[in-house]
Amino acid sequence: MLPRILTIDELQARYRDGSLTPLQLVDEILRRITAGTDPAVWISRVPDAALRDAAQDLMRGAAPGADQPLWGIPFAVKDNIDCAGLDTTAACPAFAYRPPDDAAVVARLRAAGALLIGKTNLDQFATGLNGTRSPYGAPRSVFDARYISGGSSSGSAVAVASGQVCFSLGTDTAGSGRVPAAFNNLIGIKPTRGLLPTHGVVPACRSLDCVTVFAACTADADRVRRIAQGDDARDPYARTAPQQRLPTSGFRFAILKPSEREFFADAQSAQRYADAIARLTALGGMAVEFDYRPFRDAAALLYAGGFVAERLEPLRAFVEQHADTMDPVVRGIIGGAQGVSAAELFADFNALAALRRQAEKAWADFDLMLLPTAPTLYSVEQMQADPIRLNSRLGLYTNFVNLLDYCALAVPAGFRDDGLPFGVSLIAPAFHDDALAALGERLHRATQCGLGVDRSAAIAEPSAPIAVPADERIVIAVVGAHLSGMPLNRELTEPGGSLLRRARTAAHYRFYVLPDTTPKKPGLVQAPGFDGPGIDVELWSLPAAAFGRFVSRIPSPLGIGKLRLEDGSEVSGFLCEAHAVSGAQEITALGGWRAYIAGIQT
Amino acid sequence: MLPRILTIDELQARYRDGSLTPLQLVDEILRRITAGTDPAVWISRVPDAALRDAAQDLMRGAAPGADQPLWGIPFAVKDNIDCAGLDTTAACPAFAYRPPDDAAVVARLRAAGALLIGKTNLDQFATGLNGTRSPYGAPRSVFDARYISGGSSSGSAVAVASGQVCFSLGTDTAGSGRVPAAFNNLIGIKPTRGLLPTHGVVPACRSLDCVTVFAACTADADRVRRIAQGDDARDPYARTAPQQRLPTSGFRFAILKPSEREFFADAQSAQRYADAIARLTALGGMAVEFDYRPFRDAAALLYAGGFVAERLEPLRAFVEQHADTMDPVVRGIIGGAQGVSAAELFADFNALAALRRQAEKAWADFDLMLLPTAPTLYSVEQMQADPIRLNSRLGLYTNFVNLLDYCALAVPAGFRDDGLPFGVSLIAPAFHDDALAALGERLHRATQCGLGVDRSAAIAEPSAPIAVPADERIVIAVVGAHLSGMPLNRELTEPGGSLLRRARTAAHYRFYVLPDTTPKKPGLVQAPGFDGPGIDVELWSLPAAAFGRFVSRIPSPLGIGKLRLEDGSEVSGFLCEAHAVSGAQEITALGGWRAYIAGIQT
Repeated sequence: MLPRILTIDELQARYRDGSLTPLQLVDEILRRITAGTDPAVWISRVPDAALRDAAQDLMRGAAPGADQPLWGIPFAVKDNIDCAGLDTTAACPAFAYRPPDDAAVVARLRAAGALLIGKTNLDQFATGLNGTRSPYGAPRSVFDARYISGGSSSGSAVAVASGQVCFSLGTDTAGSGRVPAAFNNLIGIKPTRGLLPTHGVVPACRSLDCVTVFAACTADADRVRRIAQGDDARDPYARTAPQQRLPTSGFRFAILKPSEREFFADAQSAQRYADAIARLTALGGMAVEFDYRPFRDAAALLYAGGFVAERLEPLRAFVEQHADTMDPVVRGIIGGAQGVSAAELFADFNALAALRRQAEKAWADFDLMLLPTAPTLYSVEQMQADPIRLNSRLGLYTNFVNLLDYCALAVPAGFRDDGLPFGVSLIAPAFHDDALAALGERLHRATQCGLGVDRSAAIAEPSAPIAVPADERIVIAVVGAHLSGMPLNRELTEPGGSLLRRARTAAHYRFYVLPDTTPKKPGLVQAPGFDGPGIDVELWSLPAAAFGRFVSRIPSPLGIGKLRLEDGSEVSGFLCEAHAVSGAQEITALGGWRAYIAGIQT
Repeated sequence: MLPRILTIDELQARYRDGSLTPLQLVDEILRRITAGTDPAVWISRVPDAALRDAAQDLMRGAAPGADQPLWGIPFAVKDNIDCAGLDTTAACPAFAYRPPDDAAVVARLRAAGALLIGKTNLDQFATGLNGTRSPYGAPRSVFDARYISGGSSSGSAVAVASGQVCFSLGTDTAGSGRVPAAFNNLIGIKPTRGLLPTHGVVPACRSLDCVTVFAACTADADRVRRIAQGDDARDPYARTAPQQRLPTSGFRFAILKPSEREFFADAQSAQRYADAIARLTALGGMAVEFDYRPFRDAAALLYAGGFVAERLEPLRAFVEQHADTMDPVVRGIIGGAQGVSAAELFADFNALAALRRQAEKAWADFDLMLLPTAPTLYSVEQMQADPIRLNSRLGLYTNFVNLLDYCALAVPAGFRDDGLPFGVSLIAPAFHDDALAALGERLHRATQCGLGVDRSAAIAEPSAPIAVPADERIVIAVVGAHLSGMPLNRELTEPGGSLLRRARTAAHYRFYVLPDTTPKKPGLVQAPGFDGPGIDVELWSLPAAAFGRFVSRIPSPLGIGKLRLEDGSEVSGFLCEAHAVSGAQEITALGGWRAYIAGIQT
């Protein structure tokens, strides 16, 4: 019996122990889809027979290798992303086409062994944050069918949250990969712009669009993101750059000032936001209130002015010929850009540039942001009665993220008393995707608010920790004038060194006072077979470049080799050329340089 | 008697030795301006009395300090840059206003002691590369009054090239800070976008505009650029970032393929381009032919489509109300953007993004570009007869530079037989301004084609070399398995190490074969007083971080200390703990590891 919500670790464990095959999984998924109560999730599906064939193909191959990390993992794709063999509709039947190839990201996931189940519903042309703007119906929050699922990646979120697939792809320009995560108790990764190529994706705002990943837990979403990411020459907006670190402890996270916490009278969502702040603080963070104004102003630009014209650009011919086939709300938004001039757009760019400068300045005070993903959620009925105004409320805390070139991770943050979910987003500058995932995973696990529709499911520790960029620091053992409080210690502290701990060498070292050195320095010399008391050392870590510079400045007769510590481990550390200690005063019996210095000072 | 062309070194030497005062200089400049034959250079000037007062103010102060590096240096400012006390016209009288403050760059130069002489003519609203589009007349090349000065920074170039000021400020969107340099035998620095703030500059294309510097020699232009650069909170497009290095030897520079060398039948300019390639090669560069197509296509975008609308944006109200007061050619260009929609502009952005990707790929093959600044030059009569087509020819090799975010340096490159000048541009990615200046200075001095109008003036070595970012590389002497061709050499080459030279240690080293090492390794031990043959070493350089990692991986009993070489110098290098060589085979007499390895292999 499979759990209600599917995770990669769980499925792979069952595949490994033989209690599940991909074919059995496919049958279970088809059963769940058939039994599903939301008819608006899927726009098209891989035919049942083809799906069973795909499962059997997997089973005929060798056991899944390292190149198939998603072997037998079922997924859904938002229907504005090409999958060979299925139409791409962008939720507009008149726009539909049959793509010859998979989108770049889909091809990578299929190559990794993932099983495509079908294409999911969306706000037409990915224009909306609510999920009601589709002729294929409005998917509903898995927690209450009266309420919206969020959008535009509506079907992708519900497919995961209802246990029909393990993960899904969405897209995100204004918040479409985050808002539906919040409304369905899911993780939503909105990667750095350009990290996942958008080749084969129907453009919304081409320079801003991101492919996103929904999953029930961070580890799953992050695994998928890492497989899907990477340059593609066919995408002019694809980018690559090294991932950046966040501080692992003592990180500063920006939070809304009380006066700027707009939840549209949803006091329980406001409380869940406060709870999330407390949890992230408990994980070692320091909350910093910040001025949300420049970010809110940037968010407002996305739909207020020329930027909507980017949505119109790829659809100009279509809108001219087929406007009557479009969702009326979407037509109103996109068509509204027809009157915007290029000069007006440049005025918006200037406004955005000024806000970007203000935002950059604000980031000096914090390392990441913790914001509500959406301030509240609405019923389908409310949304249909007031489709523009309520939709723009949903984007209050998401719209600025792509405009200002940040990455984000939507994390569940508990429930209101009426059982509707609330979510928060971690936001950081571009190329902090790895670090956000690692922190988000800890925050999610600290929250323990279930997985998707299953509020009682435990959020397990991932089978492998989420990798973050290595802290390229090198450990060095110092024995003399570089010890804490000694005259040369600043050569370690100034370039960013930090004291790790005190330790002692193994017994086979002799220790001398070097003659004619200023400041006075000792010399440590290995003497195989000698059984002394060992010598006190301090272990410091330095960034690699600082370590390199440090080594290059060490004067003769000292140098950096390997020291053996009393616990048997080996570490880079100070050694002395043997010729320099001939005739020097031996102080091995003192056990360290501090004892010697203390002795000569009394 | 002052030289015809004024340089900072020359003026400062005279100020120091007392043979010149700022007041005397002002009198000489006023004499030159009065005697000048080109009536179209200046739009407005600091009144003579005020100029003399400013000179006397300088003289009343203490001797110029380190904070006044431009003490008494006369300069001109293009009349689209604000100077308190003078109107800003942008060469459109109906647009004129009296600014309350200096533009940010002007304020910095005045604070450094520079003497503002006046405001110079330009193609109206900086729209043009030729200098004829102004109601204040068309400045002429200092070499032939029938020919254009180039534009849009026309007056600023002529003012320097005719010896009326020492340096001047221009602006550059399409090439306005480079083309006039080429047509007047000057250096033109087009800095990285955002490096010099554009606060107080009338926008052309605000996101692309750069403040530029003209001077007769690179050192002067570079000094001014460094004083004027730096963030300003009032400029939303200002940027700061560390300057990047170029290789100092073995640099690869991109040149046009013969089939792409378009000089519009100007064979002598074509020959001067070939000469410049030969000179840069002689300075240690390696010429690499490249595909100019993506760059030419980007250049064509600047005036072909939506980007012109950026020129319209700040002038929308003015163009609506005062179109009749504008230069007809400029009105036609800027007004033409009124019909361009925001959606069309996004199509241009997509095209540019695709070209940028192609351009990035091309840069893998070279470190900088050497291009003609302009393919040829035209007479005023030719230009007025065909103002759009000939102007666009002038921008063939400049228009792409700001769109693709590069910095550039225009350098004189000799003369045609008819005495008209030709120039080339060094182009590199953003934030290579320092490195371009250092290389351009060498190229200019190798050219010795005079200074401005004075073709016989010598281009002197600057009083201080042009500073470039430090090469954070560390030199290491290797003696054994890390030598070229030996098994561990890749540990140096893979992280970016380069072989500097072979060398030999001083005589007081003994050399041993370490027992039980794989691959086989030697041990070098200092033996004070010993007089051996010295040991062969290779000196490699490594980036600091790579050196740090390299050191951290060296196994016991080896380490990195200081080696003394036979020339008496000291360098980081391999040493061996003395205990490890007791009983080991000594091979000092072989003089090096290669001789030992050769011996055991035969």
